[in-house]
Amino acid sequence: MTTSDAGLLADRTPLPSDLDSRLRDHLTFLIEVDKLKTVLRQSPLAAADRRENDAEHSWHLALMVMTLAEYADEPIDVGHTIKLVVVHDLVEIYAGDTPLYDAEAGVSQQEREEAAAGRLFGLLPEDAGRAMRALFDEFEASETPEARFAKAMDRLQPLLLNWMAKGGTWRTPGVTANDVRARKAVIGEASAPLWDAARRLIDEGERRGWSVSAPPGT
Amino acid sequence: MTTSDAGLLADRTPLPSDLDSRLRDHLTFLIEVDKLKTVLRQSPLAAADRRENDAEHSWHLALMVMTLAEYADEPIDVGHTIKLVVVHDLVEIYAGDTPLYDAEAGVSQQEREEAAAGRLFGLLPEDAGRAMRALFDEFEASETPEARFAKAMDRLQPLLLNWMAKGGTWRTPGVTANDVRARKAVIGEASAPLWDAARRLIDEGERRGWSVSAPPGT
Ligand SMILES: [Ca+2]
Repeated sequence: MTTSDAGLLADRTPLPSDLDSRLRDHLTFLIEVDKLKTVLRQSPLAAADRRENDAEHSWHLALMVMTLAEYADEPIDVGHTIKLVVVHDLVEIYAGDTPLYDAEAGVSQQEREEAAAGRLFGLLPEDAGRAMRALFDEFEASETPEARFAKAMDRLQPLLLNWMAKGGTWRTPGVTANDVRARKAVIGEASAPLWDAARRLIDEGERRGWSVSAPPGT
Repeated sequence: MTTSDAGLLADRTPLPSDLDSRLRDHLTFLIEVDKLKTVLRQSPLAAADRRENDAEHSWHLALMVMTLAEYADEPIDVGHTIKLVVVHDLVEIYAGDTPLYDAEAGVSQQEREEAAAGRLFGLLPEDAGRAMRALFDEFEASETPEARFAKAMDRLQPLLLNWMAKGGTWRTPGVTANDVRARKAVIGEASAPLWDAARRLIDEGERRGWSVSAPPGT
């Protein structure tokens, strides 16, 4: 888990005090979110030998939404779905990334993310903060077709990176191919053809030994 | 300039050959674009001591569009504007980043980007490639309110990073505060209040000696 929590970035080089105060709040928020570029994920990049950060990940999801929207089982508003993925990981600036296969971290994740959301979106003018928070809540609740598709992209993207890495986080000790299938099943709530393809990659990865078929000792 | 050009990424770990061929093309494209995360820009991050990459930059622009749309002089379709910024730098995967203050690189930039666009968007199914290419062309042409606002964000974002770095690329040898003003003036074609704020930051930077007021020797 990486957190980037050492005071507001904008306080390091304060904006001129005579800027319009509403715009100043907008810019303070937009400077603070630079920290998302320092929150490291577990996923290895395909194009370089390092881990991915949350900002790169969020951009990749936005392009995936645009590219794969035609596979959505229900019609989705593409522009709105992109907004959901652009915003969905912002709270990790203060709450850190919670690895998908880390059950213990998941317990306190919601509390940490709740506090982080209040703090981060509270930097914005109130109406703007409420609007951004509503997008984050919509993503988390998974109740709209757009949120379900956004979540599907969030699970499919690291799956592609793991495929490219011939295993990646599938090789996490104690994780089995069935764990991967269980964690990725939300893809099927948004798109039957993408879930078919995802299972095909997981099955083939297991066949090649990139994930284990059962925990050691069973 | 950074290019990431050593064959298709997807060829390193080929996708199963029995995937639907249209989806296979979509995924091949989505894997290839991982290279955008390795294209380095001149801008220093605010949150860490390293240069920004194009994927992070594109994500930051998407969030800026959402946050600053209320300052657009003309009404804009926010979802469409986000699509423009998500796509706008993709050709740099093959064409490399062209620094804003490098006049010579600018000459051949258009040719290189034209070839890169054909090659990258050509990975997609034809209709999808055409749609993605149309977004790239719309951004470049700057003829719609959405494209002008997207371009404004593309100029404002590194300005904020340079402000945070107390100079950043404003300190490039031979670059003056007036050069910065000239390069950033496109912000004023999309938003009067954001151009006011940008000039305020440039003026204050010059006053503090973060940019020079005239080239040495004049
Ligand atoms: Ca995510």
